[in-house]
Amino acid sequence: MSIEIPQCKLVYSKYFPFWEKLTDDQRERLCANTGEFRFRKGTNIHGLGDVCTGAIMVISGSLRAYLLSENGREITLYRFKKGEVCMLSASCVLKSITFDVIIDAEEDSEAYIVRGDVMAKVAEENLYVENYALDNAVKRFSDVVWVMQQIMFLSLDKRLAVFLWDESVRNGSNKITLTHEQIAKYISSAREAVTRMLRYFAGEGIVEVTRRGITITDKEKLRKLIM
Amino acid sequence: MSIEIPQCKLVYSKYFPFWEKLTDDQRERLCANTGEFRFRKGTNIHGLGDVCTGAIMVISGSLRAYLLSENGREITLYRFKKGEVCMLSASCVLKSITFDVIIDAEEDSEAYIVRGDVMAKVAEENLYVENYALDNAVKRFSDVVWVMQQIMFLSLDKRLAVFLWDESVRNGSNKITLTHEQIAKYISSAREAVTRMLRYFAGEGIVEVTRRGITITDKEKLRKLIM
Repeated sequence: MSIEIPQCKLVYSKYFPFWEKLTDDQRERLCANTGEFRFRKGTNIHGLGDVCTGAIMVISGSLRAYLLSENGREITLYRFKKGEVCMLSASCVLKSITFDVIIDAEEDSEAYIVRGDVMAKVAEENLYVENYALDNAVKRFSDVVWVMQQIMFLSLDKRLAVFLWDESVRNGSNKITLTHEQIAKYISSAREAVTRMLRYFAGEGIVEVTRRGITITDKEKLRKLIM
Repeated sequence: MSIEIPQCKLVYSKYFPFWEKLTDDQRERLCANTGEFRFRKGTNIHGLGDVCTGAIMVISGSLRAYLLSENGREITLYRFKKGEVCMLSASCVLKSITFDVIIDAEEDSEAYIVRGDVMAKVAEENLYVENYALDNAVKRFSDVVWVMQQIMFLSLDKRLAVFLWDESVRNGSNKITLTHEQIAKYISSAREAVTRMLRYFAGEGIVEVTRRGITITDKEKLRKLIM
């Protein structure tokens, strides 16, 4: 579905930091090649197939980027919320990105998608746009390394999952009232690593974390981590 | 050790694509803040401690960037050879890089190192330099994801190591004369993945790969992958 150009320009001027560095013609081209999409929860948006989907800006809802193994195991890399932009789905803009990220709508979502080839052309013409695309990718780099490092080296996800499971069985409750500090001691990790992994679990819908403790909200998902 | 400014400018003009976009003053500052270093094989150059070492340009030899786990497990991410530049050691330039890569000299090596804060200042002034730094990091992003994906999802390193080990025992020889295609079939992988992992093993000194076959050159390292 194509969108109203003035509406597009309004949104882009708010969320694209390079917007004021563009010529009128470049702004026009980006908006004329933007589609507005509505995705139902669970819809695949990018990554099954080798297509340059384009730059995706979330208008509402939430998108999830993840890697998928041959045997179906998934690893969530990060999420995009309102106003956030995914450039990893525009491999024609970022030519050195050669891995396949898959992107799904995690909730009912709306997004603007700028055609990849048009974005690539503008990035070629305008250094600020290229800079933005690269910076957007580098920002994700650290997140991705962190997730992978924890899982590969420390199996922190597994250790934390086992601990939460055991605690919940021991207490006959889904609530765990220990502090992150205490949990870190039990599983020989660092407080901040536990906090970050709990945030990751929360994002996956496995737990809810409040100041008063941790609540397991999806036992089945937690169990899968342990196996 | 400080270096001759004209010599520095000559080298940088050859390897830094942004060189012609700099002002004379910027060139002067970069070279005046460049040190020439010689590292013996095995020396640690960056990453033990939270310091912005700077941009490292390899003049001769080879540097290795890797991640280190708490229990001492290493994962090689990539190598830098002559003329290649490592920006991940300049976290003050790339502020969104928050993970710690460790960099060692893998052979006796020489490198120019530009002070991180000086590089950061020039990158702030000149968009071409910032773009270069970001692009340099993004290029590594795909390598890192590939390595991690193989290890995490597929244990391809392990499967390939087990296969090479078994073959070598079966034949009573360190030579394996199967094609990559054949090996891929045996371990249910793809030919190109096997080729790439063999290249990774070769980089680690575990095997030598020629058109005539694969030779195991370090049995101990191979065995460690299996355990």
